[in-house]
Amino acid sequence: MFKATIITLYPDAFPGSLDVSILARARKQGLWDLETIDLREFGIGKHRKVDDTPAGGGAGLVLRADVAAAAIDAVAPQGRPLLYPSPRGKPFSQARARSLASGAGMVVLCGRFEGLDERVIEARGLEEVSLGDFVLAGGEIAAQAMIEASVRLLPGVAGNAASINDESFETGLLEYPLYTAPRVWEGRDIPPELLSGNHGAIKEWRLGQSKTLTRARRPDLWAAYPSGTERRASETDDECN
Amino acid sequence: MFKATIITLYPDAFPGSLDVSILARARKQGLWDLETIDLREFGIGKHRKVDDTPAGGGAGLVLRADVAAAAIDAVAPQGRPLLYPSPRGKPFSQARARSLASGAGMVVLCGRFEGLDERVIEARGLEEVSLGDFVLAGGEIAAQAMIEASVRLLPGVAGNAASINDESFETGLLEYPLYTAPRVWEGRDIPPELLSGNHGAIKEWRLGQSKTLTRARRPDLWAAYPSGTERRASETDDECN
Repeated sequence: MFKATIITLYPDAFPGSLDVSILARARKQGLWDLETIDLREFGIGKHRKVDDTPAGGGAGLVLRADVAAAAIDAVAPQGRPLLYPSPRGKPFSQARARSLASGAGMVVLCGRFEGLDERVIEARGLEEVSLGDFVLAGGEIAAQAMIEASVRLLPGVAGNAASINDESFETGLLEYPLYTAPRVWEGRDIPPELLSGNHGAIKEWRLGQSKTLTRARRPDLWAAYPSGTERRASETDDECN
Repeated sequence: MFKATIITLYPDAFPGSLDVSILARARKQGLWDLETIDLREFGIGKHRKVDDTPAGGGAGLVLRADVAAAAIDAVAPQGRPLLYPSPRGKPFSQARARSLASGAGMVVLCGRFEGLDERVIEARGLEEVSLGDFVLAGGEIAAQAMIEASVRLLPGVAGNAASINDESFETGLLEYPLYTAPRVWEGRDIPPELLSGNHGAIKEWRLGQSKTLTRARRPDLWAAYPSGTERRASETDDECN
């Protein structure tokens, strides 16, 4: 069973938003499990100190290597990767969610303060993973996002496995626009192609919409999309010649 | 005061992970406020139906435009942007967090199911914002990440304003490695530059580390960094000539 172990100064933040909808149901069904480890319990001395001032000076506090390592060493990894959410990491992606979902779970160390002593990242081989190009107050919400993205891909968690195949990033394109009842709303109709009953035409319309949207909004994804790459290669030639 | 209004099928998911540490303290101090609107209350009929099957067929369910619009129209925007977390949106960034933190707050509509009827996105001018290139089960965790990234930048929320200036993305570079006590841990020493007491040397070492890290891990950020751009421009010339 997929197991997420979270090392955190705020165990109360879990399950948090993971305790609603399909993820809550799946956990009750035993499709995945969540465990929290209170980092404070590994703190030093009577006051369970977990941080200290940065070497070389500067603002804020840094999570101590010895404290973090003691908490990490108390977890049985069972073949699971050890993640450290950090803006310095490799950006988290749908591909990483898929690879996590195909494994035994994940161990996540949630940082707080300015960050974590670099030596424990090296010594324990932490995989730094970034949720995006922004800074959070701690790793807890990032951990929840990574867990939710991964667990929803586990067999039996989403109501309908087919619903996952069409969505953004699975095809290399952003998802096409969706419409539902009512047929007309505030004078706006559903596009006629979707009402044609012609499955081929609907599929073609949706692919066209996905391509248009991806090209307009995410030139980076469009460039990586097979036909986009061909087109860009010829443009680059023109610029150089 | 910065106010976050969340329209969601799962009001119980809030405040969730926003109820710990500096964000919890800041909310108690009245530095920001959180309000949830239960989307279910705007559902149709006795069963408060909020969704229906996608026009043109396909798996799953789509959130109805009329239901979403009714919930949106019940919120007093007070000049706040109306965000819709969606993988099709513009990637959320530290710059967006800064712009949100300088405003009156945010209204966030959390999607569920396959997504939201496109017509309400157009008719109500929803700003689609993506947390990253991955798919979540709903918008709730994405909303929390966007709120946390923004609120921590509000004056008085982080313990030390100076600690924000050095962190990743604020300088265009990833943050340098951090170290703290103990001086030696598992045979690993703190880099001698940080123990020199020479503030200029420390600053230089940190900048060098940030540059090395950014170049190695995030060529995209490195290319956008001032000196990186100059270097790349000359490399491109070489390739073309």
